[in-house]
Amino acid sequence: MIGIDWGTSSFRAFRLDAEGRVAERRSAPRGILAVEDRKFEEELLRQVGDWISAGENRVLMSGMIGSRQGWVEAPYVAAPAGVAELLTCLVPVLCEGADIRLVPGVTCTDAGGTPEVMRGEETQIIGMLDEIGDSPAIACLPGTHSKWARIEGGWIAGYATYMTGEVFAALRGHTILGRLMRDAPTDLAGFDRGLARAAEPGHLLHHLFGVRTLGLFGRLEEAAAASYLSGLLIGHEVRAALPAGGGAVHLIGAGALCDLYVRAIAAAGGQAQVHGEDAAARGLARLGRAAWT
Amino acid sequence: MIGIDWGTSSFRAFRLDAEGRVAERRSAPRGILAVEDRKFEEELLRQVGDWISAGENRVLMSGMIGSRQGWVEAPYVAAPAGVAELLTCLVPVLCEGADIRLVPGVTCTDAGGTPEVMRGEETQIIGMLDEIGDSPAIACLPGTHSKWARIEGGWIAGYATYMTGEVFAALRGHTILGRLMRDAPTDLAGFDRGLARAAEPGHLLHHLFGVRTLGLFGRLEEAAAASYLSGLLIGHEVRAALPAGGGAVHLIGAGALCDLYVRAIAAAGGQAQVHGEDAAARGLARLGRAAWT
Repeated sequence: MIGIDWGTSSFRAFRLDAEGRVAERRSAPRGILAVEDRKFEEELLRQVGDWISAGENRVLMSGMIGSRQGWVEAPYVAAPAGVAELLTCLVPVLCEGADIRLVPGVTCTDAGGTPEVMRGEETQIIGMLDEIGDSPAIACLPGTHSKWARIEGGWIAGYATYMTGEVFAALRGHTILGRLMRDAPTDLAGFDRGLARAAEPGHLLHHLFGVRTLGLFGRLEEAAAASYLSGLLIGHEVRAALPAGGGAVHLIGAGALCDLYVRAIAAAGGQAQVHGEDAAARGLARLGRAAWT
Repeated sequence: MIGIDWGTSSFRAFRLDAEGRVAERRSAPRGILAVEDRKFEEELLRQVGDWISAGENRVLMSGMIGSRQGWVEAPYVAAPAGVAELLTCLVPVLCEGADIRLVPGVTCTDAGGTPEVMRGEETQIIGMLDEIGDSPAIACLPGTHSKWARIEGGWIAGYATYMTGEVFAALRGHTILGRLMRDAPTDLAGFDRGLARAAEPGHLLHHLFGVRTLGLFGRLEEAAAASYLSGLLIGHEVRAALPAGGGAVHLIGAGALCDLYVRAIAAAGGQAQVHGEDAAARGLARLGRAAWT
């Protein structure tokens, strides 16, 4: 079968063998926002048409491709949700020569009744379940909209989203803070200072102004300022999301960003284990095996 | 004398009589960022040259005109600071035919050692002192960078800045949240919902994502979404800045924004009194009287 993780900004395809292992992989900066006129079928065939022609006609897709702006809108399954609930709500997509199905998203509401949404992360979490056993666990998927999920007995019991990555980009690109920043590789000392600041009393809206004043007084270099802001925001997120008493956090995502979250979680008294980006492939394989048997 | 409150985006001039009352006023969207090639002397003469020619050759200026990007860089006086400390550090500005002086800014450090800066707000606070008596008080100057100051015995004892206004603009203009917003007059019901959300458990970075999901699920109208975001941010600011036990807050600023802060402070259990924008004129008059006698 073929597994596709198709998000807002990127397209990743996995050719999976009968045991669910990745036999071949492809990726392209062809997220759903990059596909003109919603020509998703053409895009899919352009990317993996040769695999389908060669006989892999079972295609399972997850991510924003199932959103209102995607190919077909898939529903949101209410948490708690596991493999069985996701399979019940798979959405078939009409496509000549292939049996395509979409994994639904997962929704929940927080204590105040405000809804939550995820699309794609549920499949990554499913892909990690085999590695973490049955004990209750915390999964964190850092990014534009970071997700922190509680995993209980193989189910996604609930989760919360933090807009950390997108807030960072908006503050850096469109506030006075960005004017004191110079593009540079991640400055770990600056990142750690941001983490330490996040641990101090005071609200994020106050801490942010310090990025400017430290620069103004020559106490934060332009090459370190973006890393400081990143540490400040990620530090706030981790301290808010980490359960009291710390505990182990299972990180799923790209290496460099996960490395920063490992630092932030350790600074906040937790421990992190990185599972890597292939969790999506493993989740698609597991759901696909169950869907087509 | 002439008092000038010259900020980043606006220029306000007051012709003050011997008792410090505003005899005439002018304003223009000629903040320091709008003045090309730093031709501040020309701009000043264009705005109030006729007043100076008529004999008002004493000019006191406050605000960002005293910053590194302004006419002459004035120092920051360390808090606690009052009228005497500000007068000691007035900076003379060379200008043919006028005796021009700049009010210094005020700096302090928070508990974690991070510096704070203000320019212009110190003069507005001085202008409000006569109205509030000698008891300890809290002043709030809402805006792009909101200031919350502790006033003790006629001194600015300390203060903290919240980047609320600028964060609002960046989030609205440059994140996915803005896509679900339509320009509309302030929606007080939406604003109040944002305030209520700010009172719930959860970090701001999490609450922000709710602006999107409420819209996605049809529970927040596009015309109310910007007001909800505003209420959410101002609510977070007020709850972080308001001293435990509430108490009276003296608001200084423009009417419409102060009205929103009155609501936010009341929702958080405090009481607010609005002093209006002329606090700058009164502060300039008070400092000017002392400077030229």
